[in-house]
Amino acid sequence: MTSAPTAAERPDLGTPTGLEALAQRHQDKLDAALAAIHDRTYWSAYPESPSPRVYGEEAGPAGQAAYESHLGRRFDLAQPGSDGWAGSEVSPYGPELGVTYPHLTADALIMAAAAALPAWRHSGPASRTAVCIEIIDRINARSFEIAHAVMHTSGQAFVMAFQAGGPHAQDRALEAVACAHAEQTRFAPTAIWEKPQGKKPPLLMEKTSTPISRGIALVIGCNTFPTWNAYPGLFASLATGNAVIVKPHPRAILPLAITVAAAREVLAEAGFDPNLVLLAAEDPDERLAATLAQRPEVKIIDFTGSTAFGEWLEANARHARVYTEKAGVNAVVIESTSDYAGMVANLAFSLILYSGQMCTTPQNLLIPDSGIATDQGRKTPAQFAADLRAAIDATLGPDQQAVELLGAIVNDGVLARLEAAAARAAAAGGAGRIAVTSREIAHPSFPQARVRTPLVIHTEPGDEAITSECFGPVTYLVSTASAQEALAVFRRTVAAKGAITAAVHSTSDEYLEQARTAALEAGVALSENLTSGVYVNQTAAYSDFHATGANPAANASYTDGDFITGRFRVIQSRRHLPQRS
Amino acid sequence: MTSAPTAAERPDLGTPTGLEALAQRHQDKLDAALAAIHDRTYWSAYPESPSPRVYGEEAGPAGQAAYESHLGRRFDLAQPGSDGWAGSEVSPYGPELGVTYPHLTADALIMAAAAALPAWRHSGPASRTAVCIEIIDRINARSFEIAHAVMHTSGQAFVMAFQAGGPHAQDRALEAVACAHAEQTRFAPTAIWEKPQGKKPPLLMEKTSTPISRGIALVIGCNTFPTWNAYPGLFASLATGNAVIVKPHPRAILPLAITVAAAREVLAEAGFDPNLVLLAAEDPDERLAATLAQRPEVKIIDFTGSTAFGEWLEANARHARVYTEKAGVNAVVIESTSDYAGMVANLAFSLILYSGQMCTTPQNLLIPDSGIATDQGRKTPAQFAADLRAAIDATLGPDQQAVELLGAIVNDGVLARLEAAAARAAAAGGAGRIAVTSREIAHPSFPQARVRTPLVIHTEPGDEAITSECFGPVTYLVSTASAQEALAVFRRTVAAKGAITAAVHSTSDEYLEQARTAALEAGVALSENLTSGVYVNQTAAYSDFHATGANPAANASYTDGDFITGRFRVIQSRRHLPQRS
Repeated sequence: MTSAPTAAERPDLGTPTGLEALAQRHQDKLDAALAAIHDRTYWSAYPESPSPRVYGEEAGPAGQAAYESHLGRRFDLAQPGSDGWAGSEVSPYGPELGVTYPHLTADALIMAAAAALPAWRHSGPASRTAVCIEIIDRINARSFEIAHAVMHTSGQAFVMAFQAGGPHAQDRALEAVACAHAEQTRFAPTAIWEKPQGKKPPLLMEKTSTPISRGIALVIGCNTFPTWNAYPGLFASLATGNAVIVKPHPRAILPLAITVAAAREVLAEAGFDPNLVLLAAEDPDERLAATLAQRPEVKIIDFTGSTAFGEWLEANARHARVYTEKAGVNAVVIESTSDYAGMVANLAFSLILYSGQMCTTPQNLLIPDSGIATDQGRKTPAQFAADLRAAIDATLGPDQQAVELLGAIVNDGVLARLEAAAARAAAAGGAGRIAVTSREIAHPSFPQARVRTPLVIHTEPGDEAITSECFGPVTYLVSTASAQEALAVFRRTVAAKGAITAAVHSTSDEYLEQARTAALEAGVALSENLTSGVYVNQTAAYSDFHATGANPAANASYTDGDFITGRFRVIQSRRHLPQRS
Repeated sequence: MTSAPTAAERPDLGTPTGLEALAQRHQDKLDAALAAIHDRTYWSAYPESPSPRVYGEEAGPAGQAAYESHLGRRFDLAQPGSDGWAGSEVSPYGPELGVTYPHLTADALIMAAAAALPAWRHSGPASRTAVCIEIIDRINARSFEIAHAVMHTSGQAFVMAFQAGGPHAQDRALEAVACAHAEQTRFAPTAIWEKPQGKKPPLLMEKTSTPISRGIALVIGCNTFPTWNAYPGLFASLATGNAVIVKPHPRAILPLAITVAAAREVLAEAGFDPNLVLLAAEDPDERLAATLAQRPEVKIIDFTGSTAFGEWLEANARHARVYTEKAGVNAVVIESTSDYAGMVANLAFSLILYSGQMCTTPQNLLIPDSGIATDQGRKTPAQFAADLRAAIDATLGPDQQAVELLGAIVNDGVLARLEAAAARAAAAGGAGRIAVTSREIAHPSFPQARVRTPLVIHTEPGDEAITSECFGPVTYLVSTASAQEALAVFRRTVAAKGAITAAVHSTSDEYLEQARTAALEAGVALSENLTSGVYVNQTAAYSDFHATGANPAANASYTDGDFITGRFRVIQSRRHLPQRS
């Protein structure tokens, strides 16, 4: 672990004055975040470039050293009631991490969280917001360390692991904290209520409105984006006054262990109980998430992962507010384009990035049988497939470049699905045949890493395969009888199975309007005619919402009002004031 | 039915220009509501006095005539697919109303609502807010008609039926509409997003954020406050773009039928499908609420009523967002007072009002065995009981005055519970004995009305009876071993069974602080030292929250952010803009 700042460096954080000073120090950042959240304009608190010119010459090597210092060691967090050590992470790039983490039972975790809760719960939004932003700043200072941890648990390539696991996740965290601040300060904390009574003196009361947290929150992390998908729920719950138990995916513990350590460090310095944020590492097959989720003390659950467990949580943890992000079937509707090369290159990059192991990667490319009008003439589905294959190869380039985009296959399940889909397509004659072959690439630095290029399968709307998510580098090129049928398939698959993202390519204002209406009705965000440096996979904090909560892929959105308001309640008290003389 | 305004009176409402003019006309009201909601100060859009000086000399007689015109008739709403007539309301004051309402099956209701939805869903918050405020204004104009309908379905006395069923309910409706407006306009509808790219031109996008309703909403009304408890959910769902099916309690249809008629009238004038608001009157034992609640098309449910059905909805309508207000055990903790006479009179009024048939009526009065310090010396529980009895009698006064406070017993269930509690207490020797006897009063105008004064039973903390709601004029005076035990019983009963209201009387700052902390932890609003014209039963729209959502009595609150945010989603689209030259 990196060492905590000394008391001399931050002498007064744990006093009311210290908390006020902290709030003042972070006020500009909070204000800028709130303005961006309202305006939906570009803003970022944390630079996304891992360049030494941005983070300094030392940051990269120091972060790598900090990461390596964890390997083969116990990651102590001084959590009370620990009964052993858990953890057996293996990098998708090959090496075993050899890190173990304190193991606590559900009882021990809940006892520690419950004991930590009262002071935090009653400390007020201003203090909590300041402490949370300080935590995110400390996490930002550990971005290189976290990037290596994300890389070696998710299989992301380094730059992506830095960006998505570091600053982009931190921006989503700050977004959640700012939204939590806004929601908790929606109503004046004290008010004078004076009701006229005709000729009699008015009724005169003082009223107090206090936001009070629900209690203990549980965050269940995922394998592929351990920080990015955990931070919104973690910080939304913490900022609204809850204690948070962080249950990482067993294959991606380290990024969240570093996160929890940073949070505990700041909480303790600020005079709060560090057990407000606890790591729940688990033994194999312990099913600790399910155990915790069924505890009545757990009032809030954030989950990212499989549809099966997400639906189980929604059905079985009814005592809690459950926010889920599950599987979806993302679609791109292709009707026409004025920039064919740009469109194909943009789609190629979307499929390549992290080997399609994103909940936002397009799965179904819907294109009319008769082809599409483009600035390079009419293109049939077969021509489009050939051009997509060429664009994928051009974008990948030589192997040492390709692996920096593809990363590694995160786990056996993804590889098995890819191989099964490829085998099925290779055996198929007509519909379901291979349009773009998935290649195996040898990683120049990590020979054990499994690297695969995207597989694209040409099929038809009736194929069952297009109606469920095949998480990983598998995409379906679906030829439809018409551009209208493409929209119909889009509407049908999103309504049935949900989607996190959707895109359309069209030069027709009328068709774009139809696509917008279809997306509004299906409840999915729509990217239109992306042909340059913005990809459908990517959302920007403060400006883009991630998921909508309006289709089966997710019941929540980063970060709308509904993602925050269920995490606390407003409790009022009122009393008469003496009549004015 | 009253006749709709002629086209000449409102010639242009159904045009975009007309909707803009309507929005302008209601802008000041919206702004004032939003300011009060933030500041929690006193404000009201609709005068609560039924005085002719306020509403005009004609309003009272015209409203009564309008009410009487419904009696013995079919209340036609021109709802499509009606297959008959339902309704068999009998006034708690005696007469059968003889009104029947169109009956539609769940299929017919959902088909009509679904067909009505699209234009409203896509019309935008400004138009919807304006239309909703216009509906509430029209409802306000029918306050006397609605007051008689509320009186003769709920058993409330006339003035209370006017206030709670009219302007107070209308204020809660406007509060919900204003909150819905605020939540839907939280994010800029369009934005320019410009991300710097170092030396390259910035990425430049236009983004659109659209609030989109969930679909069809169901409001399940209650017997005692047919309008007051239905309006927040009805107007929150409607203003956020949903179609609303209003399922009244079978004994309290008329107030909501008039409401639905007013809504349909305005919607049609504004060019929308009137089937956006539908009345779902049901045949006896049809269980239409349960049938509708299980339909997947129903995405939002608001319910006020029994804990049993509320919990059934929460468990079985998991495809919908369910907002419930159920039973609770309201408590008053009495430790000391500087105004004994004021305190006792205030409590007496709280127990008398509408025969205790309010979800906000105190049920448990917690008082230490050793008595309380007051400005009139120390008072034992027995002395307090005697003084409470005297205060109840003094407040009631002669029978013709008493009935204007008590109203009538709303249904047989309330009467049976009262009689059972009285019989049990009469048979008890020690704990559980009668402290204040319930008397029967003959109503001077309505001989068939069943009028009863409050029953107060003196008991101890171990009595099972104090741990569940006995809805109606039954209150427990609970002697505790100490003032601290009073707080403990308060905490325990609210945590176990919930509460809508709580109050404390104490002259000790320390004890008040303990009570505040207990109320915050238990999640119930607290009224402190009410000794004059504000009663624990009553909350003021815009300033007081009704229920908290933080204890088992309700999972929602009128009106916090959480009451609104689940009723719609934000769906985004984005597209590149040409680079600036």
